[in-house]
Amino acid sequence: MSDEEIIDGIVKGEIPFRRVEEHTDGDSERATRIRRRAVEIMTGSALDNVGYYSIDAQRSMKAHIENMIGVVQIPMGIVGPIYVRGDYADGEYYVPMSTTEGALIASVSRGCSAIARAGYAKATVFRDGMTRGPVLMAPDAAVATDAADFVVEKFDEIKDIAEETDPFITLLRIDPYVVGRNIFLRFVYDTGDAMGMNMCTIATDESLRFIENQFPSIAHVALSGNMCIDKKPSALNLIEGRGKSVVCDIVLPRDVVEDVFKTTPEAVVDVCYRKCLIGSAQAGSYSFNAHFANMIAAIYLATGQDEAHVVEGSSGFTLAELTDERDLYFSVTIPSLQVGTIGGGTNVETQQEALSIIGVHGAGNPPGSNAKKFAEIISAVVLAGELSLIGAIGARHLSEAHIRLNR
Amino acid sequence: MSDEEIIDGIVKGEIPFRRVEEHTDGDSERATRIRRRAVEIMTGSALDNVGYYSIDAQRSMKAHIENMIGVVQIPMGIVGPIYVRGDYADGEYYVPMSTTEGALIASVSRGCSAIARAGYAKATVFRDGMTRGPVLMAPDAAVATDAADFVVEKFDEIKDIAEETDPFITLLRIDPYVVGRNIFLRFVYDTGDAMGMNMCTIATDESLRFIENQFPSIAHVALSGNMCIDKKPSALNLIEGRGKSVVCDIVLPRDVVEDVFKTTPEAVVDVCYRKCLIGSAQAGSYSFNAHFANMIAAIYLATGQDEAHVVEGSSGFTLAELTDERDLYFSVTIPSLQVGTIGGGTNVETQQEALSIIGVHGAGNPPGSNAKKFAEIISAVVLAGELSLIGAIGARHLSEAHIRLNR
Amino acid sequence: MSDEEIIDGIVKGEIPFRRVEEHTDGDSERATRIRRRAVEIMTGSALDNVGYYSIDAQRSMKAHIENMIGVVQIPMGIVGPIYVRGDYADGEYYVPMSTTEGALIASVSRGCSAIARAGYAKATVFRDGMTRGPVLMAPDAAVATDAADFVVEKFDEIKDIAEETDPFITLLRIDPYVVGRNIFLRFVYDTGDAMGMNMCTIATDESLRFIENQFPSIAHVALSGNMCIDKKPSALNLIEGRGKSVVCDIVLPRDVVEDVFKTTPEAVVDVCYRKCLIGSAQAGSYSFNAHFANMIAAIYLATGQDEAHVVEGSSGFTLAELTDERDLYFSVTIPSLQVGTIGGGTNVETQQEALSIIGVHGAGNPPGSNAKKFAEIISAVVLAGELSLIGAIGARHLSEAHIRLNR
Amino acid sequence: MSDEEIIDGIVKGEIPFRRVEEHTDGDSERATRIRRRAVEIMTGSALDNVGYYSIDAQRSMKAHIENMIGVVQIPMGIVGPIYVRGDYADGEYYVPMSTTEGALIASVSRGCSAIARAGYAKATVFRDGMTRGPVLMAPDAAVATDAADFVVEKFDEIKDIAEETDPFITLLRIDPYVVGRNIFLRFVYDTGDAMGMNMCTIATDESLRFIENQFPSIAHVALSGNMCIDKKPSALNLIEGRGKSVVCDIVLPRDVVEDVFKTTPEAVVDVCYRKCLIGSAQAGSYSFNAHFANMIAAIYLATGQDEAHVVEGSSGFTLAELTDERDLYFSVTIPSLQVGTIGGGTNVETQQEALSIIGVHGAGNPPGSNAKKFAEIISAVVLAGELSLIGAIGARHLSEAHIRLNR
Repeated sequence: MSDEEIIDGIVKGEIPFRRVEEHTDGDSERATRIRRRAVEIMTGSALDNVGYYSIDAQRSMKAHIENMIGVVQIPMGIVGPIYVRGDYADGEYYVPMSTTEGALIASVSRGCSAIARAGYAKATVFRDGMTRGPVLMAPDAAVATDAADFVVEKFDEIKDIAEETDPFITLLRIDPYVVGRNIFLRFVYDTGDAMGMNMCTIATDESLRFIENQFPSIAHVALSGNMCIDKKPSALNLIEGRGKSVVCDIVLPRDVVEDVFKTTPEAVVDVCYRKCLIGSAQAGSYSFNAHFANMIAAIYLATGQDEAHVVEGSSGFTLAELTDERDLYFSVTIPSLQVGTIGGGTNVETQQEALSIIGVHGAGNPPGSNAKKFAEIISAVVLAGELSLIGAIGARHLSEAHIRLNR
Repeated sequence: MSDEEIIDGIVKGEIPFRRVEEHTDGDSERATRIRRRAVEIMTGSALDNVGYYSIDAQRSMKAHIENMIGVVQIPMGIVGPIYVRGDYADGEYYVPMSTTEGALIASVSRGCSAIARAGYAKATVFRDGMTRGPVLMAPDAAVATDAADFVVEKFDEIKDIAEETDPFITLLRIDPYVVGRNIFLRFVYDTGDAMGMNMCTIATDESLRFIENQFPSIAHVALSGNMCIDKKPSALNLIEGRGKSVVCDIVLPRDVVEDVFKTTPEAVVDVCYRKCLIGSAQAGSYSFNAHFANMIAAIYLATGQDEAHVVEGSSGFTLAELTDERDLYFSVTIPSLQVGTIGGGTNVETQQEALSIIGVHGAGNPPGSNAKKFAEIISAVVLAGELSLIGAIGARHLSEAHIRLNR
Repeated sequence: MSDEEIIDGIVKGEIPFRRVEEHTDGDSERATRIRRRAVEIMTGSALDNVGYYSIDAQRSMKAHIENMIGVVQIPMGIVGPIYVRGDYADGEYYVPMSTTEGALIASVSRGCSAIARAGYAKATVFRDGMTRGPVLMAPDAAVATDAADFVVEKFDEIKDIAEETDPFITLLRIDPYVVGRNIFLRFVYDTGDAMGMNMCTIATDESLRFIENQFPSIAHVALSGNMCIDKKPSALNLIEGRGKSVVCDIVLPRDVVEDVFKTTPEAVVDVCYRKCLIGSAQAGSYSFNAHFANMIAAIYLATGQDEAHVVEGSSGFTLAELTDERDLYFSVTIPSLQVGTIGGGTNVETQQEALSIIGVHGAGNPPGSNAKKFAEIISAVVLAGELSLIGAIGARHLSEAHIRLNR
Repeated sequence: MSDEEIIDGIVKGEIPFRRVEEHTDGDSERATRIRRRAVEIMTGSALDNVGYYSIDAQRSMKAHIENMIGVVQIPMGIVGPIYVRGDYADGEYYVPMSTTEGALIASVSRGCSAIARAGYAKATVFRDGMTRGPVLMAPDAAVATDAADFVVEKFDEIKDIAEETDPFITLLRIDPYVVGRNIFLRFVYDTGDAMGMNMCTIATDESLRFIENQFPSIAHVALSGNMCIDKKPSALNLIEGRGKSVVCDIVLPRDVVEDVFKTTPEAVVDVCYRKCLIGSAQAGSYSFNAHFANMIAAIYLATGQDEAHVVEGSSGFTLAELTDERDLYFSVTIPSLQVGTIGGGTNVETQQEALSIIGVHGAGNPPGSNAKKFAEIISAVVLAGELSLIGAIGARHLSEAHIRLNR
């Protein structure tokens, strides 16, 4: 069929979008163009910019998307150098961020300057484990608790089964939770440099078959029973973590605070206390910070992370404290940072380039080291962004106080 | 200075990224190219794809980003037609989604097919209000409670002040919260077709001056005291809403469930109950659903919404129930959907095109109608995605049950 | 029948406990004795102390308990004088507390001493409203949102209906919440000096009939749909309050902190920050304090409050801050304090006596003033208890620091 | 000094309550009488009933209370027989409950009848561990994470130290949590038949000294850093449990539901779903049940448990489901039930008698068996109370539906 004929079929509702490739001999590039043109006709829109792209549609259509019509272009900016010292990162880094929120990159840059003046930010991945939490249903609670006990007893066997599914996966532990006659099993894995959700799903699926075979009366309900818990805010991930749990901190000398942020350590501490702790507590929030989500979303976008993981990434703590020398101690703690340097969206061309700017594209040596290095660098950028926003608020806080005093 | 000289200056650390425009006579396009080249040199990366774009760098640099080096290209796919009947939407719609998570769009498409077979999804925006929640500090709690009372008493005056800042803003109410000697004031606004955060910030700022003037002993701490609460998961927004609160539902006849999802209404109900309600409850989550975040993130990306707002968007409820006729009643409730059809990232070219596909680009007539229509359509896409994923889980749940019975 | 015959009937399982009065001509005192004796026989226990009491069994059996066998005796201690200045309380008070946790009363007493040395604690009831939150089910979400709108529109009519049920009840507002096709209506009442749950239930029941009559398709599900929310921890009550919302604060001069608690304002601030804010936040708690529940439970027990309301009473904030003069600002905020001075358990003799010690027994003049005064006094006792425990922790914190410094 | 002289001293403010024993040669009984009389004079109240008691004031004053003036008498009723089958409980039990909430005991009794007709309730303690969660402060996050690692590595040594403090304590594990430069260590212990808070505190204190000795730069902040978390609602205890985690369930045949509760399994399921799951979820609650707190508070009071622990006891799940045979499956899950049969308030005379009614007074053989048996029985009473209240709501739900149908 000619392009026109296919387009006509789409417009008439005879060819659904997903069937277009059947008429283009699997040519995704052409199918993309055809769908885009059909959408233009059906909706009266002009999609010139959506159709302007350099990424390989053929490849994207295999792994990342269906019914492709083009791309969205999101501006990418650059921050840095940011000085980070961690167990994996050690040096100065440049970090691309994609956003349409004006002033975000300028603000993070200011935070990077402050870090540079103070030396570097220290970062540590203190916990690491991607999770999958299926739910099973037993005939009654007694069987459910038996199954929970069984999983703990047979951990070594289950571990073997799980790890046979992928050479890069390690089953770290299984935490069982019983609610009535339901059993939730939270499988926790090391997934190397991959974010690892798919690996975890496959490994958990295999493990479950073994468990289910021992308990014929138990029904499989869902491979994800929301005790993973994935792409949803939760106390569980705030407390026990998911993906990388990272902490990053720095002491900013008083003069750096004054010079860069035009405020004092005391004002920063006060803002952080009233806003990030008391305000968030009163709101029943799991995010005791100023705007983690902004930095994490922008880095995730630029580097091909799963954008929906910004949900968990937004959780965590920003703490500002006065040192004995009256300098500013400042830290961010991100318990659930889900990142990878291989697989998923990291394979798209622009995203690959973004990862290569940071120096963390592809598999690390040893495995997992690239993803951990990336997590450390992200935590430092988050710290820079928190410092800068809270510093700016502190500056106003301080200036208003002065105005009042002078009345 | 020549490009080479500026690049050299950047590489040597003499010219920070933000200063490049000073050397290009404000030519952002050129500055973008120069920064990109400098980053390539400093990091040894090749940024050909990042540099391939059609959006107007000059315009983006004014409103959306600093230190631009190019764009990230994220594949855009299309779902639809999706049939939606709301107070604003009424008809069939095509919805662009940008994602790199394979199978998401295919899954949502399947949900759209099910909706089409059942007729249409009904959607209602049942609450609407963008918020800003500053924190002030009083000398003691008595003054704090006085200030809280004052705000309630003088609401009409404050409303006038707030609304003078923008013709498209309406102050709906102010909810005061006292914690010790802190006063949190949650300002709730109608912001028309704009997502409206900036408008709210400006209006709140003006209002605060009036309040602060009456209480010289009260200190301004932060214009956002995290009782807005912005880009953070919270019970507050789950309960009281932020942005649009939307509900969308449908009854799927039993045969549609069986044909499209190869499962039964009973299996869908059971999965939704054990996963979305019990599992999320045990996890201490504010998201009682399967994967709201996926659909919302993908639509937000395509249409230029603030990607960090997926945090709040992920909260809400998916409920599956059996009707008396044993068909499937299915609903999604999204209490905090922050969307706009004007302003912010909606002005970028590809994002404008995406909005025009849906038919909601720009200001609505009457004001606010486009944003509400957009919210209704999003809720239907979320419903499609929830239906499809839970349906797929239900299919496996059911098939495993059959296998067991046949043993 | 003789006592022996009835006892024999109970032991043989022929007479259930609840039927004993039928054989004692309604003599509850005798029935209590008979049941107690039967329990002794059936369980081989001796219940001499349980049988030792002075309260009127006849009266208790009418209002407070069924199947009575005697009483539990819980030691009652006394703290005070505690100096409180509020809108209702103003002076020195003695407060009875019943507990079996050794050192609690001694600790609170120490807090009272500190308050006395500093002058008095200031208390304010800044919000007041007992709630009932029924759930209704509509055929679909559109009808649910219509009903929610209807309730707002017809508020005045509903208010009339509700208030006709009791001369001491005032309907303040109704907050509607829609989840799928469910409607939760949170009725908020002023209930004078009574805790008021029963009054609210009756008034809400009447109001619902009016609403249900307008919407024949809507089904009544439960008069309490857990959006009250009663005797359960919740963000809802932490944020919006239930019963009395009280704040109490004081500035303790540095020398008072040093003399009474053997620590410094700085140590108290640090403990409160790391334990009550960061620790509770990391635990996903709604209680940002040290031990509200201890004081509230002990006062509730002594004064006949509903002991299960300690659940909500445990929620809230303790904040310790350094003043500019380096003295200690200290506050407690209790958003959901449910108390009454009439009705319920306040009618039992020992509990009446306990209330009379505080000077708040019975109805206040004007109505509601006694309950509010009581709430203010409780908040001051809570403050005393928080001060004392955090002070003691601070003392150890400080002394350990000294030991380390001297190494 | 004569009684009159001491009373006079109190009234004049010269003798504080806590000093009275110094003037009565340590005679607590006399001191109690004197304080009571002084309070009567100072407050103009008559405390005849408060002064009427049989418990040993001397003994109470040593362990349970200070400044004693008498007792509060709280009516005690009896429910049962309740049929429970667990790992420790097996048979029929009578359970004393103290409350002033009319109808509670009648309601629980009805639940017991339903259980009896169905056979028995099955109960399992599926997790057991009392916790203490101190907070320490490191100079920076790197040292904090080192300390967290150290605790995991040296667990065996720490276990030896902890267990030397008490022959009946077993350290099960230590879970470390890092927030900025703070380290929270959640120590989890088996404490036998005691609720065990004090034992845990002492054992943790000793363990901490060992840890602190290895890290001279780390400061002790608080022995309880609110990651225990004690007497505060939290996701942590809902998820990971504290004290006993118990589940109890039963299948009620349809005719039992109809006969006892005048409703249907379907109505019970529907009420439980909309109220206990959806309602609680919308309220941001950690209690997905109808009224756990009522039953737990009443048993705690009668048996000398720490009343403030009703806070955690209120958390948990009630699930009602239809079986394939359309009977009613019903379960309660209580993750954080803190109970003991020795120590604390269980030593008061009336409370001892109450425990002896249940048959769980004192130490069990083997150690811990009495407390676990008690927990199983409590869970069955909670189930009875939940069944009864939800059944009653279901009856009304059903009857209103009938009325509507007949219109």
